[in-house]
This record gives sequence, structure tokens and C-alpha cells, in this order.
Amino acid sequence: MKSERVLETDSPESGRTEEKSVSDKPIVATMIGDPAGIGPEVVAKALATGEPYDVSRPVLIGSVEAMEHALEITGVNMTVRKVDSPAEAGNDRTVMDVLDSGLLGRNDYELGVESAACGVATAAWMGEMKDYAESGAVQGTIMGPINSGSLMLADKLGSLMGDESRETYLTLFTGPLRIVHLTDHEPLRQVSDLITKEKVYKVLGLMHESFSGWGVENPRIGVAGFNAHAMGEEDANEIAPGVEMAKADGINATGPISPDTVFRHCIDGVYDIVLAMYHDQGHIAVKTYGFVGNCAMFLGLPFLQMSVAHGTAFDIVGQNIASHEMILMAMTQTASLAAGEGFAPIELAVQ
Amino acid sequence: MKSERVLETDSPESGRTEEKSVSDKPIVATMIGDPAGIGPEVVAKALATGEPYDVSRPVLIGSVEAMEHALEITGVNMTVRKVDSPAEAGNDRTVMDVLDSGLLGRNDYELGVESAACGVATAAWMGEMKDYAESGAVQGTIMGPINSGSLMLADKLGSLMGDESRETYLTLFTGPLRIVHLTDHEPLRQVSDLITKEKVYKVLGLMHESFSGWGVENPRIGVAGFNAHAMGEEDANEIAPGVEMAKADGINATGPISPDTVFRHCIDGVYDIVLAMYHDQGHIAVKTYGFVGNCAMFLGLPFLQMSVAHGTAFDIVGQNIASHEMILMAMTQTASLAAGEGFAPIELAVQ
Repeated sequence: MKSERVLETDSPESGRTEEKSVSDKPIVATMIGDPAGIGPEVVAKALATGEPYDVSRPVLIGSVEAMEHALEITGVNMTVRKVDSPAEAGNDRTVMDVLDSGLLGRNDYELGVESAACGVATAAWMGEMKDYAESGAVQGTIMGPINSGSLMLADKLGSLMGDESRETYLTLFTGPLRIVHLTDHEPLRQVSDLITKEKVYKVLGLMHESFSGWGVENPRIGVAGFNAHAMGEEDANEIAPGVEMAKADGINATGPISPDTVFRHCIDGVYDIVLAMYHDQGHIAVKTYGFVGNCAMFLGLPFLQMSVAHGTAFDIVGQNIASHEMILMAMTQTASLAAGEGFAPIELAVQ
Repeated sequence: MKSERVLETDSPESGRTEEKSVSDKPIVATMIGDPAGIGPEVVAKALATGEPYDVSRPVLIGSVEAMEHALEITGVNMTVRKVDSPAEAGNDRTVMDVLDSGLLGRNDYELGVESAACGVATAAWMGEMKDYAESGAVQGTIMGPINSGSLMLADKLGSLMGDESRETYLTLFTGPLRIVHLTDHEPLRQVSDLITKEKVYKVLGLMHESFSGWGVENPRIGVAGFNAHAMGEEDANEIAPGVEMAKADGINATGPISPDTVFRHCIDGVYDIVLAMYHDQGHIAVKTYGFVGNCAMFLGLPFLQMSVAHGTAFDIVGQNIASHEMILMAMTQTASLAAGEGFAPIELAVQ
């Protein structure tokens, strides 16, 4: 997962080459997650690999003291530094730069215990990250694992829900398999009525625009059918016409394709992304495939925000056994998209 | 995939040991498939591995001349012998024993071309195999790949449909993942009405009885939910009570489990089998997992019949490039179940 983009310090051109390369890299902010959970640990271990510095200028949003605590737990040999703006951050791979608004110190939380203090802090950090992203101060964002119990204690659970005024579409990344979901947690009984040609057309347009903007050239989109073998009313009357409307706009969409085949085709490189019709189509594919290092985002947000697919894991916190694969994947995937370089290179690792 | 059961020819006990071991092995019949397709090729290569002879007494149903043709194509160094009854078959691993009712010679078909002659022959062979199984002359059966075009030309397409008077449930095997489907090709819109507690209870009973009878001791059955995270009306009102009714009978069933999790749990060994609620739940899991060597059966038939998951592959027939992994898996899986030894050992091979 090495970036092609390296610092050319010995370039004959000028000393400015390095500076230019550094400033070309996207600044990617990671909210460290609930400090009582594994977030700070896995963030520390992911940064310690150096890979996030190869492809981005990483900056953390959270608590300096919580990150110092994470260094103790993990034995990671880096230093933690407080910075005041993203522009100062991410140039030194021996340093973890943290935007710390002073909300939480080491004595304000206990590992493995949910608390209002942690809920207040993580909700505030999420808001700060959103502000940095919307102002353009950071080019990509990552949500460390948060704890709904802590947010509930702090009466901040609404912070989880995102921007209700926007239509967003859950998108999962797992190695070569990338899936946007047309519908989410609606009862499956009702999903067939939610699949309309207009909606298929709209989401295909959003997928094309978003992924093109992130550097996936003319993205090849495989569209799952709804029924077995994509042979049914919804397939013929809604999905197929929606795909045709998108194709008339020059969008590289194909479908409806048999739902039991389209995900394997994506793994095999036939498509860049799949549009799934409902939650379990995509989620069964992702979880059964078993790639190590999943991440998730909501397509349709005004900025790039990736989440990890795991929680705060209070049962194993503080033991330095939590895997950093997912947050590292989120960091490198976000950096690649934020840089306009398309999807991050894939290291094949299937469980 | 070596069997534990070996011929003890040098046993001190008596010369009868060998005879007893041989007669203990199940006789497993394989219909060679449409002779114009890859069936005879992959059957020949699977038998040439010797593995079917380790665990069964294999006998073929079809054409001696088609199998001799397959030996030419594959270069397999065995001889083909016509036998008159299954009881004579499968004792010599250098010989392919064929029950040949004289329906098709080498000049009656052309590779890669569908024909009424092939349709007539394969339909008849399917009937012969059913008769052998129902009379108890063979303990397990395997359907080689048939061609619906040939069957249609011969007006025998109905032979594909099986026994309409029985309720049968499509069951897929792919390495550690084994899935029975409660419903099949019904429109997904209608599936929620087809899921009843009575049906869940009935199929769990059939699964328990069938797999116990084949040597899977007290089979651990994971029951998929219907909605995302198994949180919905059908999950609470039908699946959960159906599972409870089965548990009251002593059946080792668990569920409803989140559909995006239950298949991965089965792969990880938590369950022996999964009961899926609809076609694509199971099929997405199987095809995305990507294990090499799938096979399929219909649970509820009065005898054990396995099919391969591929077709006649007219595009590559005669080139000795078709993989025999699936039919070999069908042979070893059928042998293991027919012997009452439970599921065949798994060699982990994921694409």
C-alpha cells in the first residue's frame, strides 16, 4: 500500500520540490473515537505504520492526553503534539498532531466505561471535524469508533444521525468490493416499493459524480437486480429503465445483474463499484467475503467522511490486541480519494 | 481429502477384512451429464484422482463410448468397462464402471452441439439413476451437467423439474458453508408472506432428520433472519417462534441471526448448516465467498442426489481445460453423507 507519490528531496529542480509535494498531499483528519474504547489505540498503531504519512498529512481531532495514554498501551514510539490548525499538521512522521480543544483529560475517562464526559467530547469532536471539512481546512475525514452509550448519557445520540436534510447512501469498502446501498434498514417487505427508476437514476448519477471527482475515471458501476437472477417486476420495470436513463447520460452502468453474481464480478475486477438494492445484499457480500480491513462512508455528504466498521470494543480495550487494519484502510482509502487518485491500491487479504 | 477408511489387505485377522471394507463403502452413481458437454471430461478427471475410490464405490450411468471419448480428450489413463449392475462396480481404481443401456454411441453426438439424441439419453439416464436409488441399489447419486437445450429438443425438459409431489429445499455446499433455502425463486416481494413459523419448524425438522441420518451428529443449525439485523416483523413473529418450536423438539437451532453475520459464522465453524430465508441470501454468500468446489442438492428427496453447480460449458468442451473440482466435491460429499459419516472433510481453498 505504498503511495506512488514520494517526497523528491534529492530532486535536481529545487528545494521547493519537497514543499510542493507535501502541500499536494491531502490533509486527512481522524477523530480519535471514544477515548474509553479502542479508538486511540488503533489510531496510534495505524499512524505508526507510516502509511498514512505516505499518502496524506494526517491530523487527529481529540485529546492529547488520550493519545499519550494510547502510546503507553501500544508501545508506539512517536510523540504527540498539540496543533492549532490543520495547516500545521502531518508533516513529521514521528509526530502525531492533535487538534485538542481541551474537552477531555486523562482523568476524565476510564477505559472500558461509558460516560457522559466521553459522549460530550466525542460529539463535540465530530462537530469540529465537520466544520474543518466544510471550510476546506481538511480534504478528508475519518470517524474513529464512537460509543452510543456514552453519547446517550450525554444526550448527544443525535450526533450519530448525521444531516437529516440530505439523502445519503451507505457505502462499504472491503478490498476490491465497493458497494453503495440504494436502501438501508427499511423492512425488506417494503423495499420493492422503494425501488423506482428515478431513484436508481439519481443514485447512479451521484455515484458517477462522486467517484469521478475522487479520481475513479468513468467508474464502471454494476447494478444488482432485486429478485433472484434479476428476473422480476422490479428488475424489468424500475431498475432496467433507471440504468438506461443513466447510460443515456454517458454513465458507465450495467444491469440489472443477478444479485448472486454481481459482487463476485466486482471482486474479479469487472466493476469498480456495485449498486445494491437493499441492506443485506451488500452486507452479506461484504461479511461473507471476509476481507480484512473494511470501512464505510455515506455517499451524498458534502465532504468525504469514512468510518471504521467496528465499535469501541470495551471488552478488549487497553490490551494492545485490537487490530488497526480497519482504521488504517479508512486512512489510506480516504487519502487516495481525497487526493483525486481513485481507490487505494488493494492488498489481497481474505480471512 | 483422504478417507480414514482404508483397505486393510495385510490385516492379520483374515482375508475377509478387505471384502468387508469394500462392501462397507457406499455405492455412488454418477450420471455422466450431456455427452456433448464437459460432463464426461470432468467425471473422468475426478475419478482419475482416486479420491472417489477412497471413499466410495463409484459407478457411472451413461455411455461407454462417451467415456472412452473423454479419456482421449483428457489423457486419463484408465479403462472403461460396461457393467450390468451397481453391485459389480467400483472395486478397481484403474477402471471406470459404466451402466450403459445402449442409448448413445460415439457417432450420435457432436461436442458442443445440443441435440435431441443427447436430450433423450440424459433424460433416460436420470430416470435409471432414480430407479437405482429408490431400489437401494446405490446409496448416493450425482447429476452431471445436463443441457436444457438438448432436453428441450427431446421434449424432456420436464425431467429437470424433479418430483413435483414433494416439497424440496435447495441446499448448497461450498466448503464449510452449507445452506438450505426456505424459499427459492419466488418474487422477493412475496417472500415475506411465505415465511411462516410452521414452515420454519417443518424445514428445521427435515434438516435435523436428514443431516443426522447422514451422520452429522446433532447438527448445529444457524437460522438467518429476514430483515436487516434480523429486526423486523417476520423475524419476531414467524422465524423466532418457528425456531423455538424446533428447539422444544430438541433440535439444535439458533436464530433468527442477522443475515449478514450468520454465513460468516458458519464459515468460522459456529454452525454446521444455515437455513436461509430466500434465494439470494444463500446464493450471494456462496458466490461471494468464492470457495472452489460447490455442489448442490434438494433436501426432501427420498434419496441422496447431488448436482454440480456448473453447466455443460459448450464453449470449452473437448479442450481438457474444464475444472473437475465441483464434480469431485460432489462425489466426495455424497460418499461421506451416504456412508453416514457426516460432511466430507474440508480442504480450504478460496478463490
